[in-house]
Amino acid sequence: MKFMEKLEARWKKSDSLVCVGLDPDLDRIPAHLISGKDPIFAFLREIIKATADLVCAYKPQIAFFSGQGAEDQLQLTMNYLSEHHPRIPVILDAKRGDIGSTATMYAREIFDHYGADAVTLNPYLGGDSLNPFLERSEKGVFILCRTSNPGAADLQNLDSNGRKLYLRVAEKVASEWNRYGNAGLVAGATYPQELGEIRSVVGDLPLLVPGIGAQGGDIGEVMRAGLDSNGEGLIINSSRGVLYAGKDEGFAQAARLQTEKLRRDINRHR
Amino acid sequence: MKFMEKLEARWKKSDSLVCVGLDPDLDRIPAHLISGKDPIFAFLREIIKATADLVCAYKPQIAFFSGQGAEDQLQLTMNYLSEHHPRIPVILDAKRGDIGSTATMYAREIFDHYGADAVTLNPYLGGDSLNPFLERSEKGVFILCRTSNPGAADLQNLDSNGRKLYLRVAEKVASEWNRYGNAGLVAGATYPQELGEIRSVVGDLPLLVPGIGAQGGDIGEVMRAGLDSNGEGLIINSSRGVLYAGKDEGFAQAARLQTEKLRRDINRHR
Repeated sequence: MKFMEKLEARWKKSDSLVCVGLDPDLDRIPAHLISGKDPIFAFLREIIKATADLVCAYKPQIAFFSGQGAEDQLQLTMNYLSEHHPRIPVILDAKRGDIGSTATMYAREIFDHYGADAVTLNPYLGGDSLNPFLERSEKGVFILCRTSNPGAADLQNLDSNGRKLYLRVAEKVASEWNRYGNAGLVAGATYPQELGEIRSVVGDLPLLVPGIGAQGGDIGEVMRAGLDSNGEGLIINSSRGVLYAGKDEGFAQAARLQTEKLRRDINRHR
Repeated sequence: MKFMEKLEARWKKSDSLVCVGLDPDLDRIPAHLISGKDPIFAFLREIIKATADLVCAYKPQIAFFSGQGAEDQLQLTMNYLSEHHPRIPVILDAKRGDIGSTATMYAREIFDHYGADAVTLNPYLGGDSLNPFLERSEKGVFILCRTSNPGAADLQNLDSNGRKLYLRVAEKVASEWNRYGNAGLVAGATYPQELGEIRSVVGDLPLLVPGIGAQGGDIGEVMRAGLDSNGEGLIINSSRGVLYAGKDEGFAQAARLQTEKLRRDINRHR
């Protein structure tokens, strides 16, 4: 099944726009797991078990694995997801962006080696740098547009021939780069006005929305600005807010409660 | 020794502005190495042995390791370089760009886990996304400005309040982001006019210049446009042109000859 079909089916089946971000930090994983084998995978497996019926997607952040020398535990996590939850789309958050031959290598890593359904990419290098990913039309490609961090405006809000740069990116995706029908955009929850402008440019393309929870984005504003014409179109991510909702043995149950609350808060605005 | 001092010392000691890019592709590595243990590392070790006296830096491209499931061979290569050639700066080409907590993880991967002297970064997320790297003031940070690929102009050449976006990036680096004195920029050899404009904005900051060789950049034009006020300031990278200059058993000698030729062609213009 193509990524976009998988996402559509999952939005309906789960009645959820919630994506749980898998950003495992060894400094924050409950102590009783740390001494065991593969503590990152053990932690994430429990998080997944506790939340799988509540989410439309998972989003592992690759840096939290490679930064801790734990690529093998990312592989275990991806294998676990594909075996136990083959209908939940998995977006590998990698924000790659490089020229042709190198981009091809990254596509191989993300789609073939790790088996992700979708990836996040950085558009600064232009359309040809995205092609090796976009050409994999069964996969999803989320292109950074307006990010959730405070410094995002440094470049993204520069006026570019009368429109902000992030809107130029949105235009490019909508009019040119999405030729295989598998592109979406990343638009931070912390800037709901910009999110709304992006929605008006890209029609019903899916938007991956980080910045809820630890980063402080407001759900009501995100929903008013971001829903598509079908009352869907959003993948609203929370990472730290879910993963570290509880401590010690109760962490998985706390993660479930937090995810349930997030789904409820979101669905109240649909 | 700080990266910038190491680079300065190496430019003088090697009398070279040549950087050899380590982009190992299993499909192009000589057949007699493929059946052995760690073929990527075996290949690169011979390339390094054959070229070390001729280069100012090496630039491994991380995707060519992670894309082939060979992170361990990147580690072997980095260890080999730090043991046998501790005075040659190693720039890990990763083009990362992410928000604070994630950027910190990437910095850990690149500087601590792999022990790189410097990294390439993507500026699209703005200044705060670069800080976890820039704050490591003993390390070097090369920020993408004008890249060497055909699609680079899609965003980088957009007019931004009267100046091209890549020049806005150059201004940001020169005036604001380089507060620790460890920043440089990436400017492709395939666009020498843009390279010259960047040089005029950033003074004597080092420029990492890909695009010579396989991508077709002209050395004379690069040198006229890019040299700094000391007749240095450039790290001119060739990857495929060196690595695959020869075939079979003669590959290392062919790589040496190609690197010698490149150094000679470059030094003719100094």
